[in-house]
Amino acid sequence: MKKMVYFFGGGKGEGHGRMKELLGGKGANLAEMTNISLPVPPGFTITTEVCDAYYKAGHKLPASLSEQIDKNLAKLEKAMSAKLGDNRNPLLVSVRSGAAVSMPGMMDTVLNLGLTDKSLVGLAKQTNERMAWDAYRRLINMFGNVVMGVDHEHFERAMTEVKKKARVKLDTDMTIAHLKELVKKYKAIYKKYTKEDFPQNPKLQLRKAVEAVFGSWNIPRAVKYRQINNITGLLGTAVNVQAMVFGNMGDTSGTGVCFTRNPSTGENVFYGEFLMNAQGEDVVAGIRTPLPIEQLNDYLPECYQQLLQIKDILEQHYKDVQDFEFTIQNGTLYMLQTRTGKRTGPAAVRIAVEMVKERLIDKKTALMRVESSALDQLLHPQFDPKAKKQVIATGLAASPGAAAGRIAFTAEDAERRSDIGDRVLLVRRETSPEDIGGMNVAAGILTSTGGMTSHAAVVARGMGTPCVAGCGTLDIDAQKKTLKVGGKTYTAKDWLSIDGSTGDVMAGQVPTVEPELSGYFNTLMKWADSVRKLKVRTNADTPEDAKVARGFGAQGIGLCRTEHMFFEGERIWAMREMILADDEKGRRQALRKLLPIQRRDFVGIFKAMEGLPVTIRLLDPPLHEFLPQNEKAQREMARRLKVPVKTIQTKVGQLHEMNPMLGHRGCRLAVTYPEIADMQVQAIIEAACAVKKKGMKVLPEIMIPLIGTVNELTFLKVRAQKVAAEVIAKKGVKLKYMIGTMIEIPRAALTANEIAAEAEFFSFGTNDLTQMTFGYSRDDVGTFVPHYIQKEILPRDPFQTLDQIGVGELVKLGLQRGREARPKLKVGICGEHGGDPDSVKFCHRIGMDYVSCSPYRVPIARLSAAQAVLEEKAR
Amino acid sequence: MKKMVYFFGGGKGEGHGRMKELLGGKGANLAEMTNISLPVPPGFTITTEVCDAYYKAGHKLPASLSEQIDKNLAKLEKAMSAKLGDNRNPLLVSVRSGAAVSMPGMMDTVLNLGLTDKSLVGLAKQTNERMAWDAYRRLINMFGNVVMGVDHEHFERAMTEVKKKARVKLDTDMTIAHLKELVKKYKAIYKKYTKEDFPQNPKLQLRKAVEAVFGSWNIPRAVKYRQINNITGLLGTAVNVQAMVFGNMGDTSGTGVCFTRNPSTGENVFYGEFLMNAQGEDVVAGIRTPLPIEQLNDYLPECYQQLLQIKDILEQHYKDVQDFEFTIQNGTLYMLQTRTGKRTGPAAVRIAVEMVKERLIDKKTALMRVESSALDQLLHPQFDPKAKKQVIATGLAASPGAAAGRIAFTAEDAERRSDIGDRVLLVRRETSPEDIGGMNVAAGILTSTGGMTSHAAVVARGMGTPCVAGCGTLDIDAQKKTLKVGGKTYTAKDWLSIDGSTGDVMAGQVPTVEPELSGYFNTLMKWADSVRKLKVRTNADTPEDAKVARGFGAQGIGLCRTEHMFFEGERIWAMREMILADDEKGRRQALRKLLPIQRRDFVGIFKAMEGLPVTIRLLDPPLHEFLPQNEKAQREMARRLKVPVKTIQTKVGQLHEMNPMLGHRGCRLAVTYPEIADMQVQAIIEAACAVKKKGMKVLPEIMIPLIGTVNELTFLKVRAQKVAAEVIAKKGVKLKYMIGTMIEIPRAALTANEIAAEAEFFSFGTNDLTQMTFGYSRDDVGTFVPHYIQKEILPRDPFQTLDQIGVGELVKLGLQRGREARPKLKVGICGEHGGDPDSVKFCHRIGMDYVSCSPYRVPIARLSAAQAVLEEKAR
Repeated sequence: MKKMVYFFGGGKGEGHGRMKELLGGKGANLAEMTNISLPVPPGFTITTEVCDAYYKAGHKLPASLSEQIDKNLAKLEKAMSAKLGDNRNPLLVSVRSGAAVSMPGMMDTVLNLGLTDKSLVGLAKQTNERMAWDAYRRLINMFGNVVMGVDHEHFERAMTEVKKKARVKLDTDMTIAHLKELVKKYKAIYKKYTKEDFPQNPKLQLRKAVEAVFGSWNIPRAVKYRQINNITGLLGTAVNVQAMVFGNMGDTSGTGVCFTRNPSTGENVFYGEFLMNAQGEDVVAGIRTPLPIEQLNDYLPECYQQLLQIKDILEQHYKDVQDFEFTIQNGTLYMLQTRTGKRTGPAAVRIAVEMVKERLIDKKTALMRVESSALDQLLHPQFDPKAKKQVIATGLAASPGAAAGRIAFTAEDAERRSDIGDRVLLVRRETSPEDIGGMNVAAGILTSTGGMTSHAAVVARGMGTPCVAGCGTLDIDAQKKTLKVGGKTYTAKDWLSIDGSTGDVMAGQVPTVEPELSGYFNTLMKWADSVRKLKVRTNADTPEDAKVARGFGAQGIGLCRTEHMFFEGERIWAMREMILADDEKGRRQALRKLLPIQRRDFVGIFKAMEGLPVTIRLLDPPLHEFLPQNEKAQREMARRLKVPVKTIQTKVGQLHEMNPMLGHRGCRLAVTYPEIADMQVQAIIEAACAVKKKGMKVLPEIMIPLIGTVNELTFLKVRAQKVAAEVIAKKGVKLKYMIGTMIEIPRAALTANEIAAEAEFFSFGTNDLTQMTFGYSRDDVGTFVPHYIQKEILPRDPFQTLDQIGVGELVKLGLQRGREARPKLKVGICGEHGGDPDSVKFCHRIGMDYVSCSPYRVPIARLSAAQAVLEEKAR
Repeated sequence: MKKMVYFFGGGKGEGHGRMKELLGGKGANLAEMTNISLPVPPGFTITTEVCDAYYKAGHKLPASLSEQIDKNLAKLEKAMSAKLGDNRNPLLVSVRSGAAVSMPGMMDTVLNLGLTDKSLVGLAKQTNERMAWDAYRRLINMFGNVVMGVDHEHFERAMTEVKKKARVKLDTDMTIAHLKELVKKYKAIYKKYTKEDFPQNPKLQLRKAVEAVFGSWNIPRAVKYRQINNITGLLGTAVNVQAMVFGNMGDTSGTGVCFTRNPSTGENVFYGEFLMNAQGEDVVAGIRTPLPIEQLNDYLPECYQQLLQIKDILEQHYKDVQDFEFTIQNGTLYMLQTRTGKRTGPAAVRIAVEMVKERLIDKKTALMRVESSALDQLLHPQFDPKAKKQVIATGLAASPGAAAGRIAFTAEDAERRSDIGDRVLLVRRETSPEDIGGMNVAAGILTSTGGMTSHAAVVARGMGTPCVAGCGTLDIDAQKKTLKVGGKTYTAKDWLSIDGSTGDVMAGQVPTVEPELSGYFNTLMKWADSVRKLKVRTNADTPEDAKVARGFGAQGIGLCRTEHMFFEGERIWAMREMILADDEKGRRQALRKLLPIQRRDFVGIFKAMEGLPVTIRLLDPPLHEFLPQNEKAQREMARRLKVPVKTIQTKVGQLHEMNPMLGHRGCRLAVTYPEIADMQVQAIIEAACAVKKKGMKVLPEIMIPLIGTVNELTFLKVRAQKVAAEVIAKKGVKLKYMIGTMIEIPRAALTANEIAAEAEFFSFGTNDLTQMTFGYSRDDVGTFVPHYIQKEILPRDPFQTLDQIGVGELVKLGLQRGREARPKLKVGICGEHGGDPDSVKFCHRIGMDYVSCSPYRVPIARLSAAQAVLEEKAR
């Protein structure tokens, strides 16, 4: 019989910290902490394999499980010298979920299990009567809600009634009599909705709770959480059954959550918070605002000193920041959980760099430790320090960054408005796991209760979303959709700005500026650069973008889209004139107006990228994109160009396409109207000559888009070379330039050997390549791709992360065939995937020369490229 | 120095018949005929390599060419005992084009070259004065037109003037004085437009004529002809310089064109026509209507007997039907050309089969000899013999087949109207090479002058287009766009029908019936079936189509599209109801109405295909195709379904897609609305059970379209199997069925190993695969693909003939990877390419099991499949 249950206790765990797949993160670390002699209440873990079996059997637990549970329960009872639900010496247990990957608050927990009408008496004797009745009402509530599905609201209402009748405000103010009345009411509620009495058999309680935890693996909010966080491939959750300890036993009891370092800034200071006389859930749920951990020294100095020791032990043992929970029962400290601490991007960088300096880890580990996508948070704009700010409140700086948005009072509202393009700030008294969808789309999160480890704060940090938590002066009415503060009322129409690094809440939309990059960041990037082999370029269409990217370490431009240059200001009119022209002569006339403008653009870009290669893509979009589609704008165009509106409408009609994505664009335009490409090549080479004449180094690379057959490329290359040779001869400058192509059509990848014979470089345009390889129109996937991800037909959105087995196969094939024909072919990738960590790693593995991504993703690509090398070595 | 000129004459040619690439068809066969001692006037051929060099050097002849010409000219002068342009004993030559592939009338010719003011005197003495002046005026006209680009019209007008003044009607009625005057006028015209005198240096004439012939290789009509006929890869044209013989020397002279067998029916009878006292151009141009060749026996019996002998020699020598030209000069017969005779499809089949019976060729040669695409002509509808026909005229049965269309009086008109979907019949006095575009799009061709070997007749037979030629009773006025016959006037609005097998011209649109297939056809098909390895299925959506295809030899249905079943009659309303439904329940309700209808459809198809496999594709097109797009129809729909019109418009808006080709369709519909696929599977399996219960063998294959990832297939397969199992259990019938997929998305081909693990068969949907692999929307390629073909960027339209190196590579890859995962995977192709000869051969070569094509293309595929085997063996 397979081992389904792993015991921990008495200084020894059957499992250990590396068994997360099987025992879940919580279970593995409870065993590990037990093994390194930290004070952990004993218990046992039911494996994730059992969860898998439970689903495979159609929601049925394996037959032999109860025998193994019984055996381990006996061991636990022996360790605790108590018996589950015993009348005199009752053992109470908690039953908690715990998957291999942390999903905070997503699945269900039952506390105080083992209490019955009879064992209550025993508990009362061991502890005190009030505590016992309080534990009992909590059990009935939790068990009723979590295991039996009775709405929590019913219990809440009963409590409110009792408190009202008793004229007390806080739960802690209720007397034993009140609690007894409450238990009675709770039992009645339980019976009303479940049609049965609250179970008085402790083993039945346990069995049902275990099933309920397994069942919670697939509740919608847990499924959604995994989806948002790309958590796939897990067997399920484990179940941890552990002896209860009580932080609510009185004034020498308490509970808290700590980080070994500050997870928001990364500073190496002990960080956490606690509540005296409370159960752990109270801290996490953010119902009472807890105290900073240093103050524990004032209440229970010995416990505080012990915690400081434990913190050091944990960091030395795990070599990483730990996020742990503790409970103090009558002056005795117990560790209930430890896990790797989630941290913000800036914190991750600082911690990694500082731990190297502390010789806790080496540089390679440091590079692997920072999730490259988290760098995003370091690079994005912050509020302009010089801007006028009207600070209306200040809360906890729970997740750094600057965010502004219109107020959304519910998660649903946030989702709905975000869908239609609204920028929203989610404003809640407190957040709960149900809010996960709204939190995901919000620009920032603001709460009025809860601390630094409340749900809102933890989740926001994980997402990299700015968050200000526990801002108590806010008076939020989600029903009426109003927020009152400082005598003013704000509604869903109003903008708020929050600074997650200071805790400031400001009225209106405060302007932002570029961030200053920390020394930690620069150190880490230097390490990354010394490891990586892939070059990182940027996609930039303007000198401004080019400069930003260069500041972030870009080693050239991988994609300069020229079409944007045709849209701006007055240029669009010359473009429209060209489109309306009947013949080549008319087109050339209009193009002559565009030539000096284009040349000026290129001069600016070449200067900004002095000494680095610049890949310029010739005109790509279909011509209809340059014409107005509605009648009013068409009339204006007619007036301006002095042509009948009918002419414009006819042209719009002629240019209309059923599937513009697969239509007359890219090099197809250049083949049918070569004069457009001629003008662009002339502008590029003239600009390059002008810049070179000023003594600057310039490396222009002309990229011809949408090549499907080598003949297109040959046709256009011959023309381009002719134009370039003429310009170079005329300017009398020695200039080297390259002509290459985008590989974005499946056929181009398949016939890459032919194409490479003509192309000096390839740049994989994986956006279009993904569209055509999947047969997905990016504009239209909204109707089915979300279904696909939900049904796990697609693991992820292939437009965000390169589909390595399909599209990637084509990329690999194209690269191999290209290099067969031209061994020194320069190969890169441009488009969204160039800044996606997994995709960058793929590009490294298949042997590309560079990736190109948007300026803000350049550091992400640099780090990912380094990680790719390290991962390869680790294999 | 490379040999650029090949001499023939005196019983020996330097070249031979297999040197067509180098000498062109005409040149090679002149040498060959010389070698087998047929009476050929001597001459020499300038190679196609010279043509290639001419273009590569920028329209310049190689320097050493004139030396080689001079040498061969000297040889020719010796053979003829005459001197080019000599005053007393002048040699005259013809200068003609001739490429490796015959392009009748497409390029230029100059006759009587060598005549000058002085040599005319010599010619007059040798022949007669009238003849000499007539030859001279012809030379000035041809040379002026062909070599110097003077419009032929100018010469025509001068001739008309002279004839009017002289009050004569026919050219032959002009006296010497008239001809002298004409020459004077022609010279003046020549000078006026060329700014120089007509050249009096015969060698200069020759040099210019040679250049002009090379230049004619790339004139628009020649380029267009090659395009239409997919003629690529040639070096250029050769130039044949040959001693002139004159068919217009008087009553013992003449000229003619013959076929060794009837090229229209294939019957083994001597076939041809001639004109007494005429030059060859007169026959081909169709200006005078010639006499049947048998009548030559009445004029020149010896020559006729000699021709009969030559006919037999030619067939025995070439083992194929020959199309040859002869000229009789003063009772002496000369052969001017022979080539493989173009023939109609029915003739090709009959000739191939009869030649096997005559032991002239073997069966394999017979199979290779019939161009499979020509079978098309045997299969297409013919006029219903029982229909009432109003025959208004009868002409020559020049190219068989039934055609009806509205009259187009010019080729341009035919092209223009055909583009907008009009079905046209091209009606001309005579056609000329300029008309090629219009002839290509016309349903049929009708001329009032010209014989069986006139331009119209030859080209029409080549194209397989029905043609009635030389219908002299028609009074055609292309200017006024009227056709008068039998006292009635027909205009461009009127329908005419022509029967190219009888020569009948009928008013109106005569109904057609299926053709009866000849014994020759069946014999050839039997031979093909015994050779081929590929199975041939058909694409059929109705029992009627299925029966037709079965009659043509289809071995099953490879693609039954179910969407057509949703459009017909009342069904569309249930479909629309389903689309409007808000939820699954509503959709299921509407689908219940469709179930019995679909089942009935499938029962019919299974019965028609009893014992053969039937592949049924689940719903494929996007839902918006089922909704009306214009407001009027939307209002009607609203009335009928009793919903607000707004609801319909909203739905239409929701379903609108930017790129529907890459949108929500195929299996993506089935994944998001599985109930649609459920209904279809239920209908298929219920129908199969019902048919099986009647004792018939039924082999259903369920095909899931547009699979891009194996997960889609798994998801839908599991559902389909569940539905099928339920039906089979309920009906109590043992039924085997298969579930497979279309491979039409590049990603499916790339991940075919994964997909084949789930799919029992693959059917390559090369229409969509071509769209996505090229990134071409079939609906939108009109804007650039014609340019591409013209510029030779694409060799052919990839939607007609499979692009073997790009799309084909993906097909090959998909097949290999699929068979790796499932060695017995059944693999076929459906879509247009399944009936295209080259594509069928490709499918054979890569190892497919079957091709599937439209019913009328089934025989083409059968023959192509056999040819593929034979070509493979030949390698």
